[in-house]
Amino acid sequence: MPEHDPIAEPVTLPALTLGVGREVVLPRAAEAMVWSGVGLPLECVAVPGVLLRPGDVLVEVELATICGSDVHTALGHRLASKPLVLGHEQVGRIVAVTDQSYAANGMPLRVGQRVVWSVAVSCGTCVRCRRGLPHKCLELVKYGHERMQRGWELSGGFATHVQVRAGTAVVVVDEHVPATVLAPASCATATVVAALGAASALVPLAGATVLVTGAGMLGVTACAMATDAGALVVVSDPDPARRQLALAFGAAAVADPSAPRESPTGVASVLAAMQDAAAAEPTIALELSGARPAVQTALDLIGVGGVVVLVGSVSPDDPVLLDPELIVRRLVTVRGVHNYTPGDLAQAVTYLGGAWHRHPFSALVGTTFPLARADAALALAATARHPRVGLAPQPPATLG
Amino acid sequence: MPEHDPIAEPVTLPALTLGVGREVVLPRAAEAMVWSGVGLPLECVAVPGVLLRPGDVLVEVELATICGSDVHTALGHRLASKPLVLGHEQVGRIVAVTDQSYAANGMPLRVGQRVVWSVAVSCGTCVRCRRGLPHKCLELVKYGHERMQRGWELSGGFATHVQVRAGTAVVVVDEHVPATVLAPASCATATVVAALGAASALVPLAGATVLVTGAGMLGVTACAMATDAGALVVVSDPDPARRQLALAFGAAAVADPSAPRESPTGVASVLAAMQDAAAAEPTIALELSGARPAVQTALDLIGVGGVVVLVGSVSPDDPVLLDPELIVRRLVTVRGVHNYTPGDLAQAVTYLGGAWHRHPFSALVGTTFPLARADAALALAATARHPRVGLAPQPPATLG
Repeated sequence: MPEHDPIAEPVTLPALTLGVGREVVLPRAAEAMVWSGVGLPLECVAVPGVLLRPGDVLVEVELATICGSDVHTALGHRLASKPLVLGHEQVGRIVAVTDQSYAANGMPLRVGQRVVWSVAVSCGTCVRCRRGLPHKCLELVKYGHERMQRGWELSGGFATHVQVRAGTAVVVVDEHVPATVLAPASCATATVVAALGAASALVPLAGATVLVTGAGMLGVTACAMATDAGALVVVSDPDPARRQLALAFGAAAVADPSAPRESPTGVASVLAAMQDAAAAEPTIALELSGARPAVQTALDLIGVGGVVVLVGSVSPDDPVLLDPELIVRRLVTVRGVHNYTPGDLAQAVTYLGGAWHRHPFSALVGTTFPLARADAALALAATARHPRVGLAPQPPATLG
Repeated sequence: MPEHDPIAEPVTLPALTLGVGREVVLPRAAEAMVWSGVGLPLECVAVPGVLLRPGDVLVEVELATICGSDVHTALGHRLASKPLVLGHEQVGRIVAVTDQSYAANGMPLRVGQRVVWSVAVSCGTCVRCRRGLPHKCLELVKYGHERMQRGWELSGGFATHVQVRAGTAVVVVDEHVPATVLAPASCATATVVAALGAASALVPLAGATVLVTGAGMLGVTACAMATDAGALVVVSDPDPARRQLALAFGAAAVADPSAPRESPTGVASVLAAMQDAAAAEPTIALELSGARPAVQTALDLIGVGGVVVLVGSVSPDDPVLLDPELIVRRLVTVRGVHNYTPGDLAQAVTYLGGAWHRHPFSALVGTTFPLARADAALALAATARHPRVGLAPQPPATLG
């Protein structure tokens, strides 16, 4: 049987009867916005029914936010199997469960619960999962990243519903936290928890000077989280609006690596900012931008016994030069972080539940578009004017 | 007062009365072999008395072993302040203490105890010491590395006695363990404990495949220690005798990075050895050689979620190329280890106390010379024919 192509044949799909599970027929068909190639408009596909396999959950999306990687995929900057439903940052409400659907904390999931869920679906049994690396599962699939397939059409957040599969970490969230605060939990916030965890496993955050390169969604989240943990945070970003935002999220000082006095790697401006803030040498550096000069800056400035966490380098680029003697004599650690564990997501939700009162997290979603205007939302997200742009199946009244 | 120069004026020194402390007049003057430059013979300097400051200990040396760094200093391959007394690996017996002399475990030290001690003297109060990095103390001095100075003439193991200063980690050792096994504890063994600890803080040793590059004293110690902890060890070294030794210390397979089929970095031979041993991808790599191709091999072969510990790169050399995307996507950690903490030394002593029955540690000291023949000992050590060469003030009867 050939795979269904929702773009070539945009009809409603019959409810599937493959395998065992619970068939859910929705009162009104679910809709997903399908991306099928660079420059093509997203197309709305109707999905009238869903077959939940044991452990699956059907969630009605309240709000999705557009991550930088969604933009990169849409612009063709990264490999992607098409057609696909974008979106892996979202919050929603459970509308159907099976009797084997459990939250990440082991509690049974119930209809009506408000939830977020991990970007990755893991098998739980392969050698990587058994080694505590479910985010590097050998059978890994990711929401918003997979070619649309029969039986898992609702595989991304740019939709009215998502079929959250067994092997996903689902975390129940508080009713009172704004959706704009919660939607990024499953990518930006949990990744920052993982990055700070990778550092704080080796160097305590309290009292540390933390250098953050890149003040986008992850950078400002890192500012808030590290500051709340008792660190002094210095941020480097060439964009003045982002530097301002970093200050609003707790940064003690900011640096412009593109300033004219600057060496190619941005070291001088960071040193000046550290001096302004009376900061000790950084013992933690979080590289969130992926820019090679920023990677080099972090490696050059890290203090004795310090940890550089690389997060932003997710695209092919030139290598950087590493001096092994410096790494050895200065007892430096360099760690890569990509995605996160279920525990990191739970911690991200707990953190946001308290932190949104202290930091302007709810202001990071600049505008929210109705689902049907997903193309406009992606275009605005591509300008990087806002840390995040939202997409809502039921947009707020103000957006009519 | 100008500093005393024992080479220009090789007379016995009067016991000092500077500061407070306990003056120890020895029944027979202590002797230290002093290095004063490349190509010059070591000279014997007599030290009739020692002023112990509070917390100091005077130790009579039983056996010192010659570390590669002693050879490098003597050959002028590294910066050194001269004149100096070489030697930082040794075991001895306490002949004098003060009422403030304590072991690393907090117990008072007593005359007659057999001890080893750390290579570093730390202040205990600076920011680095307070951060748990006494081996990177801002006031750090090291046995066998400092210019000979008035009041601390007995500062290295190439001597009948060493004045072990307050701020040194002193560990009492068992009477029944051979001196040849114990002498390297304070450099080679404790450094391997630190390196394996840096790895096992992130990845469990039990069940891991550990890649070790460099099968000298540290490499074979790492083979034994990792194997005893339940790891499968694959060793790469261009020297066939060292590869044989690695097998005797528990390596499951060995690789020759200089084999003709080899790429410049030695990856192919390691992969073949891993296949021979049916090894999983390495999740721990210990780079002990300092050779740049070996560093690159370790970075290229480390598995997902794995840790590369760099130890051998203690000399200036070309940088290596690091691909940040690979580090990020594969969740790799790269750590530098240089020297060790007091806890690492205590663990090294505990380990050797049991391990010398299981592994041929006592055979690693190829020959032991009397102190007066330190030049010959250094020359033999420079051939690297043996993992270690010994120096003994009271040489074993067989060497009479």
